[in-house]
Amino acid sequence: MSEISKEELDEIYAFAVQLGKDAGEMLMDAAKVRMGDVGTQEQKEHVQKENAVDLVTETDENIEAFIKKQITTKYPSHKFVGEESYSKGASRHYLIDDTPTWCVDPLDGTVNYIHLFPMFCVSISFIHASKPLIGVINAPFLNQFFSSCADRGAFLNETQPLPLLHNPIPPLPANAPSSCVFSCEWGKDRRDTPDGNMHRKIESFVNMAAEVGGRDGRGGMVHGVRSLGSATLDLAYVAMGAFDIWWEGGCWEWDVAAGIAILQEAGGLITTANPPEDYARAPIEDVRLGSRLYLAIRPAGPSPAETGREGQERTVRGVWQRVRNLDYSRPGA
Amino acid sequence: MSEISKEELDEIYAFAVQLGKDAGEMLMDAAKVRMGDVGTQEQKEHVQKENAVDLVTETDENIEAFIKKQITTKYPSHKFVGEESYSKGASRHYLIDDTPTWCVDPLDGTVNYIHLFPMFCVSISFIHASKPLIGVINAPFLNQFFSSCADRGAFLNETQPLPLLHNPIPPLPANAPSSCVFSCEWGKDRRDTPDGNMHRKIESFVNMAAEVGGRDGRGGMVHGVRSLGSATLDLAYVAMGAFDIWWEGGCWEWDVAAGIAILQEAGGLITTANPPEDYARAPIEDVRLGSRLYLAIRPAGPSPAETGREGQERTVRGVWQRVRNLDYSRPGA
Repeated sequence: MSEISKEELDEIYAFAVQLGKDAGEMLMDAAKVRMGDVGTQEQKEHVQKENAVDLVTETDENIEAFIKKQITTKYPSHKFVGEESYSKGASRHYLIDDTPTWCVDPLDGTVNYIHLFPMFCVSISFIHASKPLIGVINAPFLNQFFSSCADRGAFLNETQPLPLLHNPIPPLPANAPSSCVFSCEWGKDRRDTPDGNMHRKIESFVNMAAEVGGRDGRGGMVHGVRSLGSATLDLAYVAMGAFDIWWEGGCWEWDVAAGIAILQEAGGLITTANPPEDYARAPIEDVRLGSRLYLAIRPAGPSPAETGREGQERTVRGVWQRVRNLDYSRPGA
Repeated sequence: MSEISKEELDEIYAFAVQLGKDAGEMLMDAAKVRMGDVGTQEQKEHVQKENAVDLVTETDENIEAFIKKQITTKYPSHKFVGEESYSKGASRHYLIDDTPTWCVDPLDGTVNYIHLFPMFCVSISFIHASKPLIGVINAPFLNQFFSSCADRGAFLNETQPLPLLHNPIPPLPANAPSSCVFSCEWGKDRRDTPDGNMHRKIESFVNMAAEVGGRDGRGGMVHGVRSLGSATLDLAYVAMGAFDIWWEGGCWEWDVAAGIAILQEAGGLITTANPPEDYARAPIEDVRLGSRLYLAIRPAGPSPAETGREGQERTVRGVWQRVRNLDYSRPGA
């Protein structure tokens, strides 16, 4: 495993930021062609002929090909892991190892993009020694560009430090998960199987939402429940401090790598979604990228009673107390 | 009831648009002061002293006072209904009558604003003869400004016609609610009462989400479930075509009036959330503003099999088949 110098990392960061800008522009241009706002006659006829899903697949593939070409030209020795390049779920192995690796989702929030709901983005991360060091997330229809590099800070639109409230960073609420904004996703697995993932998720959501004292003492009375349909943007908003808690299962590496880089650089915590048996005392470890089970807590400052980290761990345990184990493993594992 | 001329309405529209811009700027400035980005020393010290909820209440009241002053100065004969001016739920009467009326929410998505999640907005509508004629929604942190005036079209950022996909407007999916994006909110009523509103909502959400064939045949297998925490922006995204369906109970007039104006001008349909007994055949009527129960369907073009309106009505019935009646009445009514 080779070391990366400060200068090299700076250069890689600048390259990643520019790549995120270019790819985001491609994504937005493709959206505008669909809206009929721009584009050549040929492009407009193409849009008329194809259905929305085929068009989106084409955009997805084109942007990934562009990003891959830029990366492999500039850094031929680096590994490339892209959503479109991997047949989803084909590998039984963790995709990320010690090699310097780029992990890319050319379009996260695909359903949103199909329907032109603005919560979609390009997501690019650079990983070294299994640690996401650089994250770039560009949500062009929101005009929101998130970026971070290890030890250089995390930013919205390159100038605004994350979390947004940072002077000082507020502690987590003393009664968390109450007073917290809870972000979660319904996902694609909608099988109506008793005790299957969908029903375990719903039971968990309802526990988090219900009044304190309800649900046999599990009611969390969160301040709000939000579902955006983009794991990447969920993580970006946790890094921003806008969401206090994000809990999800089933994501792949490219869905979360850039978001994890940005969240951790902003001071957030990310661990496993599935509560350990001794949830009140088990050690809280950083999640392994690729585990498919994630619980993220926003950056937090100290209160008179505890450090920021203590508040985050208390919140993790408050969530673990209320959620079910989800059944997502790596295929074949 | 006085008539309003075309010229008068044009003037009122221009006034409402400018008012939405000014109020949105006030809202974003207050957010920036909280982030520590701008503001005088005095303002920054004030932010340090107050807690987030008090600050937000103050911003809410300041913006409503500003809007009210502008309106009552310019149009002293018009009625003003603002969220902050009314003690919520105090009136047993419908707030909107035949008088020319401004219905204003200075800050919709209050929880989002407290946490600085970008889904918050100013909402201004002008209503005449009980019909919302003008709608202005400004979500300044998203750089999204929605506006409409009767017979003059509905727009995003003043130039982009709504719905976004308009050349042609796509029909609703043949298998709706499957393939649809379904927007819904958990709301504030989290009482863990058997068959209470929270549990009726959850049962309805799960029916809409579950696989086709699941839930004793009620599974709707929607394409995605979204929860933003802002009724106003939910309606704006239905008008945009980004959400196909929005279903909600409990909103007040100021939460929905501007969104309804924009949705209807864009070609969307809005009726009641609560399924009539004969849901498959009952007439589908425009909702009464103030009923607190809303089901919105996006603008739709024709397919070879049906008109756009037929597709919308088919979708309404597909939702009614899967949702429970909610128990929200006007206080005292």
